[in-house]
Amino acid sequence: MTFSDYPADARRTITGLSNPTVKSLRALRDTRLRKREGRFLAEGLRLLTDARESGLIPQTLVMAERRDPHPLLTALEADILATGGEILEVSEAVLEKITGKENPQAVAGIFAEFDTALSRIDRESAPIWLVAQALRDPGNLGTMLRTGDAVGAGGVILIDDCADPFSVEAVRASMGAIFTQKVVRARWDEFLTWLRAGTGQLVAASLRDAVPYRGAPYQAPCFLMVGNESRGLPEEYERACDLRVTMPMRGRADSLNAAVAAAVLAYEVLAALES
Amino acid sequence: MTFSDYPADARRTITGLSNPTVKSLRALRDTRLRKREGRFLAEGLRLLTDARESGLIPQTLVMAERRDPHPLLTALEADILATGGEILEVSEAVLEKITGKENPQAVAGIFAEFDTALSRIDRESAPIWLVAQALRDPGNLGTMLRTGDAVGAGGVILIDDCADPFSVEAVRASMGAIFTQKVVRARWDEFLTWLRAGTGQLVAASLRDAVPYRGAPYQAPCFLMVGNESRGLPEEYERACDLRVTMPMRGRADSLNAAVAAAVLAYEVLAALES
Repeated sequence: MTFSDYPADARRTITGLSNPTVKSLRALRDTRLRKREGRFLAEGLRLLTDARESGLIPQTLVMAERRDPHPLLTALEADILATGGEILEVSEAVLEKITGKENPQAVAGIFAEFDTALSRIDRESAPIWLVAQALRDPGNLGTMLRTGDAVGAGGVILIDDCADPFSVEAVRASMGAIFTQKVVRARWDEFLTWLRAGTGQLVAASLRDAVPYRGAPYQAPCFLMVGNESRGLPEEYERACDLRVTMPMRGRADSLNAAVAAAVLAYEVLAALES
Repeated sequence: MTFSDYPADARRTITGLSNPTVKSLRALRDTRLRKREGRFLAEGLRLLTDARESGLIPQTLVMAERRDPHPLLTALEADILATGGEILEVSEAVLEKITGKENPQAVAGIFAEFDTALSRIDRESAPIWLVAQALRDPGNLGTMLRTGDAVGAGGVILIDDCADPFSVEAVRASMGAIFTQKVVRARWDEFLTWLRAGTGQLVAASLRDAVPYRGAPYQAPCFLMVGNESRGLPEEYERACDLRVTMPMRGRADSLNAAVAAAVLAYEVLAALES
């Protein structure tokens, strides 16, 4: 199949910074506008390949003109055109404007946002699930998704008012895990009702009535919860946990980055469940 | 002691955005200009209190007008004036301009950059040291400092071309650990020569000739090295390690955020050394 086999309007070249399509793609970096559109942006051939391997094809592919041909990109282009998507060839200036990044990657894809209902979860499908409460930093959220992928977690459940998991920053930090991890949004009471209707151990790092995190009696499926970056978890949420664990703090600050704490705990749970 | 006891020029009120002092403080957010000045900015009363407890007093204190009085701030103000420093009262607009942040914290301090020579390290003073090679993200660097503080590490050694540890982003992510951890910059050959002239085990996560990270024979002082975010460690650096360890990767991506990998390893080393 060659270029000329596809409908003419499926491929366009855009160089003007004020082109309406460029403006609408640029809007995906604004959380409010992005949510209204129900679409998100993922950059780089590696991420797009991860997505494709998970069966997800972008609606629109944006790529720099005169890029080096790459067999993975050619395969992706064919898939997009076959599924009725669109390919835009743009100048580097346009790509910078869309991604908000100097020296952007040569290719980006626009995807339809996923369904984030709790009903998407099959809790038995993975030994570990991460739960984030009011996590405000999209980089932390993306890093948790990435860690989730590494430990074989099923996904990340977002409780209360969390950062946007489909923001450019979160997707970037997830390094492709946005496509391999389930992303769920739920209210606390909704989550707790769902959790208690089946198996599942709710675990959090805490100073209240807690046991050392090493050697704690973790059980699958283990739901590992971390709280807001500055306030931590509300006391009520900690009380609802089946297991509260403490991590050693040998320094002055007595705290860890939320994504770091989640990762240290997740690796501990992984080791306990596999031993 | 009251306001009027201090020299008049030690306290100033600035409201104009184009004031030269504001411009020179704003320049601290630019890496090149910041390095030339040899000063850095730390935001928030909590960080400034951490610094004070480590014996570090800012040269200049910048604070919002009409802030709530706070005993810690009053003590800090007295220290600054006693050490010949300066206090600037500014409008919120000026504070936003200096910190580059909407809704900035009500107070920020300007500190002289620390000496980052390898000779500042007493390797026996801590069981763990973190080593970062060509780490490009200042947030990752700050997070490593914070983790270092939590595990009781001595500090972070920066090899090759790393992000600026005194950048606003790194200082912010360190959550005060910039004041409790040693920060060292060294060339690889310089570091290796120094390391081999005394005790110290060099450890890295690696796929080459490596043992599982759990139960590996860690020894203090343990120098835990992580590489660049996208390229990892150069092969030569991995070969120079005394111990190479692997971490389980159960997902598709086969990688972790550099600061996360450092933290998971650091907690493992801490547990091994303390058991």
